[in-house]
Amino acid sequence: MDNLEAVEDIILKRGQSPSEMLNGMLHSGGFSGRELAEAAVMLKAIIRGSGGRVLTFPADIIATGARGIIVQMIKQRAFDLVITTCGALDHDIARTYAKYYKGAYFEDDEKLLKRGFHRLGNVFVPVKNYGELIERKMQEFLGKKYGLTEIRIPTYKLAWDIGEYINNDSSFLYWAYKNKIPIIVPGITDGAVGYQLWLYRQSHKNFFVDILEDETAMSDFVFTKKNVGALIIGGGISKHHAIWWSQFVDGLDTAIYLTSAYEYDGSLSGALTKEAISWGKIKPKGNHITVHVDATIALPFIAHAALFG
Amino acid sequence: MDNLEAVEDIILKRGQSPSEMLNGMLHSGGFSGRELAEAAVMLKAIIRGSGGRVLTFPADIIATGARGIIVQMIKQRAFDLVITTCGALDHDIARTYAKYYKGAYFEDDEKLLKRGFHRLGNVFVPVKNYGELIERKMQEFLGKKYGLTEIRIPTYKLAWDIGEYINNDSSFLYWAYKNKIPIIVPGITDGAVGYQLWLYRQSHKNFFVDILEDETAMSDFVFTKKNVGALIIGGGISKHHAIWWSQFVDGLDTAIYLTSAYEYDGSLSGALTKEAISWGKIKPKGNHITVHVDATIALPFIAHAALFG
Amino acid sequence: MDNLEAVEDIILKRGQSPSEMLNGMLHSGGFSGRELAEAAVMLKAIIRGSGGRVLTFPADIIATGARGIIVQMIKQRAFDLVITTCGALDHDIARTYAKYYKGAYFEDDEKLLKRGFHRLGNVFVPVKNYGELIERKMQEFLGKKYGLTEIRIPTYKLAWDIGEYINNDSSFLYWAYKNKIPIIVPGITDGAVGYQLWLYRQSHKNFFVDILEDETAMSDFVFTKKNVGALIIGGGISKHHAIWWSQFVDGLDTAIYLTSAYEYDGSLSGALTKEAISWGKIKPKGNHITVHVDATIALPFIAHAALFG
Amino acid sequence: MDNLEAVEDIILKRGQSPSEMLNGMLHSGGFSGRELAEAAVMLKAIIRGSGGRVLTFPADIIATGARGIIVQMIKQRAFDLVITTCGALDHDIARTYAKYYKGAYFEDDEKLLKRGFHRLGNVFVPVKNYGELIERKMQEFLGKKYGLTEIRIPTYKLAWDIGEYINNDSSFLYWAYKNKIPIIVPGITDGAVGYQLWLYRQSHKNFFVDILEDETAMSDFVFTKKNVGALIIGGGISKHHAIWWSQFVDGLDTAIYLTSAYEYDGSLSGALTKEAISWGKIKPKGNHITVHVDATIALPFIAHAALFG
Repeated sequence: MDNLEAVEDIILKRGQSPSEMLNGMLHSGGFSGRELAEAAVMLKAIIRGSGGRVLTFPADIIATGARGIIVQMIKQRAFDLVITTCGALDHDIARTYAKYYKGAYFEDDEKLLKRGFHRLGNVFVPVKNYGELIERKMQEFLGKKYGLTEIRIPTYKLAWDIGEYINNDSSFLYWAYKNKIPIIVPGITDGAVGYQLWLYRQSHKNFFVDILEDETAMSDFVFTKKNVGALIIGGGISKHHAIWWSQFVDGLDTAIYLTSAYEYDGSLSGALTKEAISWGKIKPKGNHITVHVDATIALPFIAHAALFG
Repeated sequence: MDNLEAVEDIILKRGQSPSEMLNGMLHSGGFSGRELAEAAVMLKAIIRGSGGRVLTFPADIIATGARGIIVQMIKQRAFDLVITTCGALDHDIARTYAKYYKGAYFEDDEKLLKRGFHRLGNVFVPVKNYGELIERKMQEFLGKKYGLTEIRIPTYKLAWDIGEYINNDSSFLYWAYKNKIPIIVPGITDGAVGYQLWLYRQSHKNFFVDILEDETAMSDFVFTKKNVGALIIGGGISKHHAIWWSQFVDGLDTAIYLTSAYEYDGSLSGALTKEAISWGKIKPKGNHITVHVDATIALPFIAHAALFG
Repeated sequence: MDNLEAVEDIILKRGQSPSEMLNGMLHSGGFSGRELAEAAVMLKAIIRGSGGRVLTFPADIIATGARGIIVQMIKQRAFDLVITTCGALDHDIARTYAKYYKGAYFEDDEKLLKRGFHRLGNVFVPVKNYGELIERKMQEFLGKKYGLTEIRIPTYKLAWDIGEYINNDSSFLYWAYKNKIPIIVPGITDGAVGYQLWLYRQSHKNFFVDILEDETAMSDFVFTKKNVGALIIGGGISKHHAIWWSQFVDGLDTAIYLTSAYEYDGSLSGALTKEAISWGKIKPKGNHITVHVDATIALPFIAHAALFG
Repeated sequence: MDNLEAVEDIILKRGQSPSEMLNGMLHSGGFSGRELAEAAVMLKAIIRGSGGRVLTFPADIIATGARGIIVQMIKQRAFDLVITTCGALDHDIARTYAKYYKGAYFEDDEKLLKRGFHRLGNVFVPVKNYGELIERKMQEFLGKKYGLTEIRIPTYKLAWDIGEYINNDSSFLYWAYKNKIPIIVPGITDGAVGYQLWLYRQSHKNFFVDILEDETAMSDFVFTKKNVGALIIGGGISKHHAIWWSQFVDGLDTAIYLTSAYEYDGSLSGALTKEAISWGKIKPKGNHITVHVDATIALPFIAHAALFG
């Protein structure tokens, strides 16, 4: 309890940058605001100093403008490995070719569908810009790329191939392809892209997704990188897969969780960074922080501070 | 606003069954208590009346005594299809052969690991009862079952094979095998069982997990069943995969979500049943309810009422 | 880490009582379900064994059928002191004379108001059954009871006087009056009853609410009772006021928090029982548990188990 | 569904101000990030354009550096009326004369107390800097200010008198006194200041807190102001009291709720702005937004944008 740092009142001044704002919050003592500031410091350290940099995110944020920040970070090679879900690929493809719209949580969902919109939280997704569009693009891509010879492809190569096919700088898949940053999708069948792979398979019996081959990429990554840091946005399979492999090398050196889930239902999504220590997935002496916040609030500020602060 | 039902005060009496308690809550007007009671009514209707009955759950509850309820429901053929995560298989195998313990959230996680325990929320998992044990059992199983010939196996057959091998009536995998209820695991690589499959692959180059074949099972299910109902425990990939396939048949007829996540971060885990209507994943005229509650609280009471009430 | 208790699978059987169900959950190892079972054990110990028994609750549950459980506990003298909010008095008065209705969260709130309904979560409160009704009853009561002589009344006496006036066994105020259980309302002005007191004051300049006198009742309670236990439902001022006074006697001996708030925003509502230890508000060696759950789910089961189990 | 606004990817650039960042989030379509940006727009409109500007906050943020922002807004007369809790006065007094420290959620709370610290979330409050200090300052203040003559004081005048006595520009009470901005504290007895008032009363039998007189101030405010806007931080009594009085003038014109609570337990803290419409507490055509976020994250950014953007 020695060397405690005093709580200092935040002073707002004209001209402060996001980074300067976060620095004020860093010394504010309290609650999630201070923790967000600590996350910004760690994110800067990861991006600029880690030997292996992992980014994970769920599908939903790719349906929002936060996709721009993901793109920017992958384009600038701020990360070396990405783990995400099928839905992230779906939304990246859809939004490369068509628009999503600002919506509202409390619309009548039956009427929305009749008018041609799906709802994703407070985002409206035109029906025609989603399933049909992804089907058209994916079948076109699959037909051109793979043909009838036997294919056994891991998801990270598939993601690169899609990125190459998309060839559009608004897409994170494109930049992952360009920069040869693996996008691992351990739950690839669970969404529109996965469904298209299955559809394709119906007429191409020799087309296989080899998810075990992805794990070789994960293994190669964790066993060759030193000082690994991860920005883990949201929960679910992408969060778990990042920390899962870290256990084999005594854990992540730095870890940031951004989550709006809590630990009291035992969910992995709500599990704190400290729990990961007991699994050897984060190093006991590592830097780690869990910030309870929607990533669409947190990510712009901490990414800005890490990239420019 | 006609035919509104009045809020009635709950009366507790000696001798009330869980079902009678829930019936009092059903007429109590308010909040999650009433919704839990509505979920109990729907669950009974699903189990006793639906033409296709889907159960999904995440890994964590298999680490608790709630596993007993899952086992009981699968044993009694209360469901026709199960979707879950790799971790659920991990915990089922581990707990078939060894013990987990009552723990606490606020232990020192570094010390816990040194003493030989992982922490999963407030459950302590002995290190030796988890990774090593699962490795031993899985490698033994894989070696005996599959050998060197080429294997292309979907996860639901793999789950049955594990269940057969386990041959223990405390295991949900065993009862799924016995009752030929498919266990679909779209994120099979993400956990100890998946890791063991990958390890096995290193010396068995012809061993493949064919996740697209699982999707054929999903397709067959949704296109042959009429009046489909689902109990969806928790979020993540198992939740999404259940509702994903339902869209191709105009949606689930009945759906219960038990979740402790909220919709305001756009997460699938927090998405309400009403959102699924806009995706055609739940029928607009279907019965559906989202109860915001930890499943370890809710499941015992609603399962009891549905099975015996 | 010695003497750890193994996780045991729950077995559901026909004929189990809520208490037997909770006992199964008690040995289930995990998550909030186990904690609810621990709360049931503590509640029974408080009601049957504590020397001073405190109950706190917020207004909202009095708008639901959970009011019946509050009434039952006060009627049976299960508690010796109650702390609540103005809104609890409002809803108790309103529901003594008129009805509230089962509602829904996602109605159009503007249309609801036009049709004559307020919305309280998923409960509909007829406009005519609330403000107007409470005004009529309160002004009648105040006029008859107090007149023009100078009145300086603490809230607990006011609550008793209202209870006496109501004279209806559906009302918790009535039973508090009958059983002389103080109802402390530290934020009495914040709601319909408080507004009526203010209205009355406009024409009765000598009418004063003496909230400091309530504190004398609090002081008398904590300094005369030994072995004090509290069931604290929800957060806010009623939660804080219960633990506030406990600090002067080295803290509560037993404390149960039922809350759906979390500690990461520093809110008192989300603060865990363990935090109260650092303030001397709960004894370090006391029994205490925080269960993250909506009280309308938890209260029926734990109250049933405590009263009849 | 006409005139929908497309989701635009956020672009981070060196040199962006918090206001420019929020503007990017405003067009990002999704989730709480977009809502925070909408809150920033509304806050600017309230501060610069509303005829009556209400600020409410709970105690906890005064224990953190966010106090500096509250001070800055009151000092700059950004608001005309403040509603808060007793604890906010406690922390303001304590932090005027002594320090609080950066802490951690997961310390051993019993040890913390032995070492002389209370814990408030992740803030450590030295025991000597809290209760004793507030007792010393309050008794000194009360003795000097009020003496033995009969006193009947509303909380807003009491708050001003404390502010005058403190006479320190780090204090929000001081600036409220200086700028004659009423600080209404409907739950004044619930905390250290309230306890000191009660202690004082033991030897000064003619000292009364007249909370009904505060309601006259509330009434005067709502009936004289046109176009009223409120920034409502957190839940509990301060939130409710702001919207309570608004019902008598057909509701607030603009309302921002910052909360980390949810509506599904029926709590006022989690109630959405839309619910308030059904009570006539927010105008149906008013601007209103609920952002689910810890205020220590949100307030710095939106206050900066509102004051300087």
